[in-house]
Parts: sequence; structure tokens; C-alpha cells
Amino acid sequence: MRSTIITAALAQAATAAIQPRNFIYIIPDGMAPASQTLARAYEAMVDGEATPQQPLIGAIPIDQLPVGNVRSHSANNLVTDSAAAGTALAAGFKTNNGMIGITPAEEPVGTVLEAAKMAGMKTGLVVTSTINHATPAAFSAHTINRNGLAFISEQQVGYSHPLNQSVDVLLGGGACYFKPSSDPDSCREDDIDLIRHAELSGYYVTQDRQSFTALQQGQNISLPYLGLFSSDSDLAYEIDRQQQPEADREPSLTEMTELALQALTRETTCTGLNCTATPGYFIMIEASRIDHSSHAHDGAAHLHDVLEYNRVVDLVKSWIDEHPDTVMMSVADHETGGLTLPSRWDPRPLAGANHSVDYLQSAMEAYTGDSAADYAADLAQAYGISNADSAALAQSESFAQDLADLLNAQSGLAWSTGGHTGVDVTLYAYAAGEMRDELVRDLAGSHDNVELPRLVEKYLKLDMDKVTRRLREDVSWLQ
Amino acid sequence: MRSTIITAALAQAATAAIQPRNFIYIIPDGMAPASQTLARAYEAMVDGEATPQQPLIGAIPIDQLPVGNVRSHSANNLVTDSAAAGTALAAGFKTNNGMIGITPAEEPVGTVLEAAKMAGMKTGLVVTSTINHATPAAFSAHTINRNGLAFISEQQVGYSHPLNQSVDVLLGGGACYFKPSSDPDSCREDDIDLIRHAELSGYYVTQDRQSFTALQQGQNISLPYLGLFSSDSDLAYEIDRQQQPEADREPSLTEMTELALQALTRETTCTGLNCTATPGYFIMIEASRIDHSSHAHDGAAHLHDVLEYNRVVDLVKSWIDEHPDTVMMSVADHETGGLTLPSRWDPRPLAGANHSVDYLQSAMEAYTGDSAADYAADLAQAYGISNADSAALAQSESFAQDLADLLNAQSGLAWSTGGHTGVDVTLYAYAAGEMRDELVRDLAGSHDNVELPRLVEKYLKLDMDKVTRRLREDVSWLQ
Repeated sequence: MRSTIITAALAQAATAAIQPRNFIYIIPDGMAPASQTLARAYEAMVDGEATPQQPLIGAIPIDQLPVGNVRSHSANNLVTDSAAAGTALAAGFKTNNGMIGITPAEEPVGTVLEAAKMAGMKTGLVVTSTINHATPAAFSAHTINRNGLAFISEQQVGYSHPLNQSVDVLLGGGACYFKPSSDPDSCREDDIDLIRHAELSGYYVTQDRQSFTALQQGQNISLPYLGLFSSDSDLAYEIDRQQQPEADREPSLTEMTELALQALTRETTCTGLNCTATPGYFIMIEASRIDHSSHAHDGAAHLHDVLEYNRVVDLVKSWIDEHPDTVMMSVADHETGGLTLPSRWDPRPLAGANHSVDYLQSAMEAYTGDSAADYAADLAQAYGISNADSAALAQSESFAQDLADLLNAQSGLAWSTGGHTGVDVTLYAYAAGEMRDELVRDLAGSHDNVELPRLVEKYLKLDMDKVTRRLREDVSWLQ
Repeated sequence: MRSTIITAALAQAATAAIQPRNFIYIIPDGMAPASQTLARAYEAMVDGEATPQQPLIGAIPIDQLPVGNVRSHSANNLVTDSAAAGTALAAGFKTNNGMIGITPAEEPVGTVLEAAKMAGMKTGLVVTSTINHATPAAFSAHTINRNGLAFISEQQVGYSHPLNQSVDVLLGGGACYFKPSSDPDSCREDDIDLIRHAELSGYYVTQDRQSFTALQQGQNISLPYLGLFSSDSDLAYEIDRQQQPEADREPSLTEMTELALQALTRETTCTGLNCTATPGYFIMIEASRIDHSSHAHDGAAHLHDVLEYNRVVDLVKSWIDEHPDTVMMSVADHETGGLTLPSRWDPRPLAGANHSVDYLQSAMEAYTGDSAADYAADLAQAYGISNADSAALAQSESFAQDLADLLNAQSGLAWSTGGHTGVDVTLYAYAAGEMRDELVRDLAGSHDNVELPRLVEKYLKLDMDKVTRRLREDVSWLQ
């Protein structure tokens, strides 16, 4: 059988007439093809009238957008991690698991975000993990080890990056990595104060709902923005976020996305005569925690983060309809958990859960009273489980997993692994009007993940190789 | 969130300029999205130089063709069976699991194959199951119960079908259903001789390699053809077929497809002046046994049936390049087995298997000697397993499953269910030249399975409703 790299479809893009000014790249980290089926059926049955025996199922926002699929293996493993996958999706190079923005030979490679910045465009990263986590890191940093989170933060705000400040919107979690060790909320081992550095570089820094609201309302607050809405952890799962007190509630991915699009559009749209010369923007938005919920086999947290990803896609589609010089592409970096939906699966039991199993386990661990079994029963109830053996649950050393297993038994969701899988992920894309036809023509088919940023490069007329040359001029900054 | 049936993409097709004469519909029964990843990696590692630690992976034939995905639920279940899915794909109606070519209210509905026949086109069904199995049955028969195999056969050769003979090429297994009970090879309970009926209706009947070869070489043998290459069973798994003695070897799906395309093209291509008036053909090709291998969790049999499906797709692509008035669409009716590929999966151990577990279990059951453990060890070896506990294996009551589990442990393939799943399946399509662009534009996105035959209907300018009215004129023929 013939076994050749097929690049015909993407090669066509080189001569395509499609010329968007702005590119929105959305990564639902770890999302399974099965997640799309799950979210659709949930919507039809919990918000709609369908049942498993009468599945009158409509469509969710991502349903308009599949155009193909994407292979995700890394340079050294059939099953990638988010660092190698992020590097492939951001820079177009296969690298080893764990590496960020460098080749297996440890040479830095330029990313589409950096190339956009070098071309004078505005750039953004909006995520629900810590902002220095593997995927956003792969667009904005270069390091041999994805765990060098303090070092990655330095690059992200231009403290130690050859291009200096290259990201105009940074919204996510992980404030502690930006604070000097003298700060009680720091998780750095040195005295570098990246918050201060950012402020001096002109960043508007926001770390709570109040200042985020000010930013939402502050049409005259100019870029760049640095928003860090958690200390050392990821932002909350969407299912938990919805239960936070409104006054202190973390921004949702949809809220952060809308804020970023408004600011990026405002600052790349001139009102004078010379508008065609104004560069546009590039933004990467990550629904980061779909992956985490899959590692935990937490069907309820998974569902709500997938639904939130769909709300982001819906917002972006509407945005593109109103701003047709903008193109969207979305793809998971890999699949996590091996989710499948066997006979007699039923999404309805997921509706009973109000919290993630991670959240509930933390609550159980923090409990100091003398009615542990009752408390465990309450927590199980908050996960939609009414028939748990609460005495056993209170004593369990795997409280979170036990809860997850109970709900999986009720909903029939089947997970095959606690890690990632190698299955192809679904490629989604959207553009308005005739540009959609060209985008679909270019993207239909199966692609290697390294092909995707090259497409962005062509559409936006960027030069990633130029960034690579710049990064390699002097590599003393690289760890 | 908005939850509406999205038909925009397919509605566009109504006004599309695309006007193929011929349509090739390929159904890889039960194929998982993961099967595409598996087959691709196997090709790169067993036929190529790649390893899991250096996965330099190219592409397989189907990799050029993904354009979207398809929802598969039936009228009464989130997880469909092949009868309801076949009815959706053939006739555009949701029905209950188990039903063939009728609505849940038990009213018959016309299929694209029947509509093609009514429009004067030639038609074909080429499968590796028995020819009266659910999927081919759904294109050519109507019955409340997919298990009424004898009745389905009668309809397929026009013995009891309102349109009389509607299928010009019938190639698959299941000869016993066509023979009267007086025949020792019959599995009918009546004296209806469908072979005789077919011959009297003009069918060329072939039941072995010798007459199949005559047909391959007999350029002047005209349609219709009835080829039945097994008695009461499906055709062999591809992995087993390859070990059959050459003189008696069953035709492969690729061989049957090529024969069918040659004959259908020959008889729908006039050599005179009035060629534009010659109707074309519609053919459904099913890689039937991918599903069976998934039920059995038999990774090796699965792989080789998926590779054979890829060879069929490769043949069809070449055929379309040479006959650009032809369009191909391919989609699984559902996913089976919940196959996933977790960390450390490795396709290479599959290369050691020369037989399916079903075949080897039959061999074990037939063994009457006094060295059962040695024989079990030999059979395990034929499945690529050298370290089996052969004494335990010889005594096992689940010999096939034990073998499958051993190879799955070596290759790391993970299956989550012995049945079907509800996950979306991948939609593949191909056309030549500019027609590809239009096809991709029409098919990109997520579709309900009932939308697909309507697209065929529009492309070929057929009228399925007309067939439906005809079928309902007098339903005394319907069981």
C-alpha cells in the first residue's frame, strides 16, 4: 500500500485567495471525538425533550465545523503530551514529549504567535490552566522542560525573551509564578517580580473579578493585559466556577475570550484613512481543563468544560460573522482518557452533579468534624450520587475516583485509560461567506499536526523561519 | 445554548452544480475513528521503518478523505444497530433497532438503490458478510426483523420485491439462503429456489473462485450477477482469506469491487452518439467484518479488514480519477468495540498474527488428538503469541477471547465494550477535479446519518419518495 505524506490539500493553500487579517486558534486540550457526541446528547436530553429511547438530537455549536482530522504523535512517542503537541501546533515541528518550542536537538523554533508579533500584529493567549502550562507555553516560550514554569513565565511577559514582550493578552491562572519569593503567594525560588516587570512594561494587571469587570467596562484601557485569576493552580473547572460567589467568581473562558477579542479588534482597527495597512491579531484560546477532567474520569466536569468550549466557539462564530476578515481553526492537541459511549449510555445522570470530584475530594480532606460519613453522603449528593456507601466513601483513599466511578456507572461513560491516547482528533474550522469555502477546501482531509501552523502562516503572510533565525542568534537566554 | 438541527451545509447541495453520473457508497461497518490511526501506524512500522519511539508516519488511502463526522443514533436508541443505521444511510429515515427499510410505524421507505433502479440506472451491492445481512439488506429489502434472512434474500433477487429485480450486482456470502430446503446446503425452511429464480431472471450465478475468475475474464458476460462465496456464514476475515489455498480462495472485497465497477461501467457507457442519455450506476460496498472483529476484540483481524477497506478506497480513488463522472462517499454505520490507543500502544505485535481468533477457536474445537496443549500452543503461535500458558489455553472455555486478550496486552489496544458505541463516525468523500471542491463544501460538518442518502438523491437526481409511494401501493408482500 502507498504510504506517503499527503500534503496536497494544504499545498493548495499556498495559492489560495483567502487573506484574513485575524486568526483565532482554539485548542480544547485532550478533547475526544466522543466528547462532541456526549455534549450534543446532553443538550438534547437535559435542556431539551429527548430521551435515550427517543433521541431527537439537534446540534451544538461545534457541529457545523468539522472538516477533517489530525494526527497527534510526537517525535519520540506514538502518544504525545501537551508540550510536544503544543510545539507542533504552534511552531510546526515535531519534538519530544516534555519539550516546549524547541526541536529534539534542543534548538528553538519560532511560533505563529511570535511571527505575528514580529509582523506588527497584536497577540493573545487565553486559557483556563495556569498561563505557563504546556499549551500556552508552546506558543510563547522555549525550554527543554515544560515543568520550568517560573522560567516560562519570564518569557511570556518579555522578561527573558529575545523578542521582548510578544504577548499582548495573557489571561489564565498561575499568579504565584509571577511573584518574587519574598511574596507569601509566590512559588518562585528567586526574587524576580514579573508582575512589577509587566506593569513597568505597560501591562494592565488584573487578578480578581473586580478589576476584570473594570477591564470589561474600561473601553479606554489599552493593551497589553496580564490577567491571573488563580495563585498556583489552574482556574476552576467550569462546573465548580458556576458555584463560586458571584462577587469573587473567576472569569469564564467565554468572558475572557470576549474581552480579548474586543481589545484586540479595537487596537487593530484604525478609524483613519490608512486602514488596509493596520495589522490584525492572532489569538490562541485553550479550553485547558477538558484534559484534566478526562485524566480524572470525571464525566460531569468534562461535560461542563466541553459545553463551555462550545459557548466559546459559538461566540467566536458570531464574532466572525460580524468581522468576516477573521478565520477560526480548532483542534485538540490529543485525546485523553479514551472516552467511549457504549450501549445503554445515558447523559442524564450527569445533570445531578454540581461539582467536580477534585473539588469534592478537597472538601472531604478538609473536613474535621465527627460526622464524616454524613459529610461524605452530602458530597456524593453534590455529585449526583444518592446511593453511595457513605461510611466506606468517608474512609476511602481514592475518594475522587470512587465518586467518578459511581457516576460513570450510572451514565455508562467508559474510559479506557488514565492517560492520553494516540487516536486522531477532530479538526474544526470556520470562516464567513466565501472564505468558508476556501478554508474548507484547504483543510478537508487528515493532517499531521505540524501542518496546521504553516497554514496560519500562509493565511496571515507570516514568517516563522525569520523568528527561528532571530531566536538562534544568541541562545544564552535559553534554559 | 442553541440546539437546532443544522442542515445549512447540505441544503447548499440542492443548488450545487455537481452532477455525477455514478455514485459509490462505501460502508466500513463498525469502524472506529481509532482504526484509521491504528492502520496508519501499522503501515509505517511494519511495512515502513518507523517505531513507536520514532514515529515517522505517512498516510494511508483514507487519510485524504475525511470531511466531517456523522451521528448514528437510531429512532429508539442512542446506540444504533446495523439495521437501523443501514435504513438511515440507505433511505434517510430513522427507524428502530432491528428494522430494515421501514419506519417505526412499519411502513416501507424507498432507498437510494431502489430509486437509482427506478431511474434506469444499474445498481450493485458488494459485501463481505452474507449478502442478506443488515447493511446490504437495508438498501434492497424491507422487513420488520433483520433476522428474516430468507425473506430478505427473496427481495434481493426480485422474487418478492415490488420493483422486481432491483440489484444488478449481488456479491457476498450466504448461498444457503438462496437454496430450497431440499438442498443439503440450504438454510431455508421452504422450497423456494432463489438460485434457480435468479438464473431464470438472467443472473450469472457464481459460487466459487473458478467461476469468479471466469467472470473477471468474461468481458462479454452481461449483468446481472449473483455471487455467493460462502454457505451460511460471512466471507472469511481478510487475515484468514489470505491463508486459503489459492485455487479455492474467496474473492477479496477489492476483487469483487473491481469486477463490479468494470461491469457497471461497461453497461452504463454507450459507445454511440447519444451517450449523455445513458444512466449511470449506484453501488454500495460494505467492509462488513470490521464490525465483527471489533465485537471479538480481535485486533489482528480488525487491522487486516481495515487495511482491505483502505485498498478498496485506493482502488475507488484511482477509478474516479479515470472516471471523473463518479463520486464516492464513505462512512461507518456506527462504531463497535470502543477501540482506543492509550500510552505505550504498539501496532507491531499484530504483525505476528496469521489468523483470526474465530478461526483458531474453530480449529481448537475441532481438535481430537491427545496433545491438546501442544496444539493450543501452535494455534497461539499462529496468532503471534509465543508465551501462552498452553495447558490452560487448551482447557479454556473462552479460547478466542483469551487469545484476543493476550495480543491486546502485547499491542496495548484497549476496547471498552463488546457491543456498539454511540460516538460519531468519520465521514469520508472523494471526487476528481473541481467536483471535489463542491463535494467537500457540501459535506464538511457534522451530519445526521439520515441526511446522507438525500445528498445522493440530489446528486443523481433520484426520487426516493416515488419509490416509497410504489412500495406502499400494496403492502401484502411485506412481512
